[in-house]
Amino acid sequence: MAIKYGVVGTGALGGFYGGMLAKTGQDVHFLFRSDFEYVQQHGLHVDSVMGNFHLQPIQAYKKSTEMPECDVVLVCLKTTGNHHLADLIKPILHAGSIVILLQNGLGLEEDLAIQLPEACIAGGLAFICSNKIGPGHIHHLDYGKLIIGSYNVPDDAILKQVVSDFQASGIPTDLSLNLLFARWQKLVWNIPFNGITVVLNTTTDKIMDNEQTRELSKELMLEVIHGANACGVPLKESLAQQMIDMTIKMKPYAPSMKLDYDHRRPMEIGYIYSKPIETARKVGFEMHKISMLEKQLRFIQSHM
Amino acid sequence: MAIKYGVVGTGALGGFYGGMLAKTGQDVHFLFRSDFEYVQQHGLHVDSVMGNFHLQPIQAYKKSTEMPECDVVLVCLKTTGNHHLADLIKPILHAGSIVILLQNGLGLEEDLAIQLPEACIAGGLAFICSNKIGPGHIHHLDYGKLIIGSYNVPDDAILKQVVSDFQASGIPTDLSLNLLFARWQKLVWNIPFNGITVVLNTTTDKIMDNEQTRELSKELMLEVIHGANACGVPLKESLAQQMIDMTIKMKPYAPSMKLDYDHRRPMEIGYIYSKPIETARKVGFEMHKISMLEKQLRFIQSHM
Repeated sequence: MAIKYGVVGTGALGGFYGGMLAKTGQDVHFLFRSDFEYVQQHGLHVDSVMGNFHLQPIQAYKKSTEMPECDVVLVCLKTTGNHHLADLIKPILHAGSIVILLQNGLGLEEDLAIQLPEACIAGGLAFICSNKIGPGHIHHLDYGKLIIGSYNVPDDAILKQVVSDFQASGIPTDLSLNLLFARWQKLVWNIPFNGITVVLNTTTDKIMDNEQTRELSKELMLEVIHGANACGVPLKESLAQQMIDMTIKMKPYAPSMKLDYDHRRPMEIGYIYSKPIETARKVGFEMHKISMLEKQLRFIQSHM
Repeated sequence: MAIKYGVVGTGALGGFYGGMLAKTGQDVHFLFRSDFEYVQQHGLHVDSVMGNFHLQPIQAYKKSTEMPECDVVLVCLKTTGNHHLADLIKPILHAGSIVILLQNGLGLEEDLAIQLPEACIAGGLAFICSNKIGPGHIHHLDYGKLIIGSYNVPDDAILKQVVSDFQASGIPTDLSLNLLFARWQKLVWNIPFNGITVVLNTTTDKIMDNEQTRELSKELMLEVIHGANACGVPLKESLAQQMIDMTIKMKPYAPSMKLDYDHRRPMEIGYIYSKPIETARKVGFEMHKISMLEKQLRFIQSHM
């Protein structure tokens, strides 16, 4: 079965993952914003550690209302615009369409399900280092693994096909049986490093080089793990040290929130910080330090 | 009885308080560092909301070994140099001398008592806005109240005399019967505002204008209060809202740690953050948010 893919938000993530699918012959329809005219003329360039490629012609659109209905919609936008998401994707959904939220944070699927009660929703987590470096120009620097999991998809045949399509395009992809687990697990890294690199205006290597902030990172990780545990998600405490060890070995890195901060763009505080804090609070667990980090980030956001 | 006063560290605080005593005829001996030559020639200028004055001649010294033994030594240095304090003041102490640590934080008297077991030690808290604006030139902008309390002074006659001398010079001064209470109480304000203004590179008014950081300030205050309570110091929770209300009414203000940060000087993290954290931890109370703020400050300090 050939899936008709829609990519909503063709930036660092959507350009790479959608591009990889299109490159291997999948039927992919890309929604652009400001880059639309450029891409119509010059196509999409992806410089990747897995091999550079150039998509031209490309099935590019400027408005979702001009796109065909798609079987699978990959949402690759920043979550800061998610209040508009239902309206944006409604025109490209048919009765059996699956929306995959390839975004960071917690509670994304729940919020979309309230706006689109009939939609089949899944989530995805991208473990990738990729940036948009110019109009229609993506630079994929490292990693790339995808984890996809169902939120309320009644039948997993299509999701399995999606996983298989990604794998065929060269992207290591897993189908998770527990999306909530996967989302919390990714937060164990995202919560400390997105926030601290912004508040202390630094990069992961400097955080790791300093004993105080290395310890703080681990404390924040443990707070995420304990919050997840309180919500019934069985993350292990040992994950914290594993992620610390991994981060020590990583090249100096500015997480996406730090890039947003550096470019004076809205930061994804809501789904990466506020939602996890609220979710844990509902079951009586207070994430003290994460809540402090959230407030510091909100202050910084309001003064950008 | 006429007291022979020594002022160790003649800066924003020592210059003002020692200067006020000298102006009203007290016998005050001032220790300077880099300003010594300048002050010998031009005297000490104090521009004060309570009236400008100029001390010339002034009993100024460059080394404590050249000073006479003093009955009361007012220590007005930053606590970041306190590991040298015992050696610095030993030459000016006689058997009955009282050392008054006019410094912020917790555990200062305990540390000095370990180094100078025979010394009579008291502490003082200055509620003042004063800056050094040039060599031998102090600018006293607002407030000025002093609270003095005994740590291990066997007889309070001299401390009462000190209070009376300050009062006679025009400075509102109280003798506290509970130095520990007074120190913790001042920390309720110092802990949130010193740290947050540095970490978020801002001033008290902006912290108060933002709902998130206003709330965070109050949470930090409550953590100090609960920490104090755990240590047997009966601060009331209502103090937090009182201090928030007071800070909202204050002019935009950069606390001393923010000034140190702006001038790339060592910050007083040890006695304002680490000591209270350790003290509360010893009785089983973990100050989570304050400990996070401490780590952020240590990172910033190490990258200055």
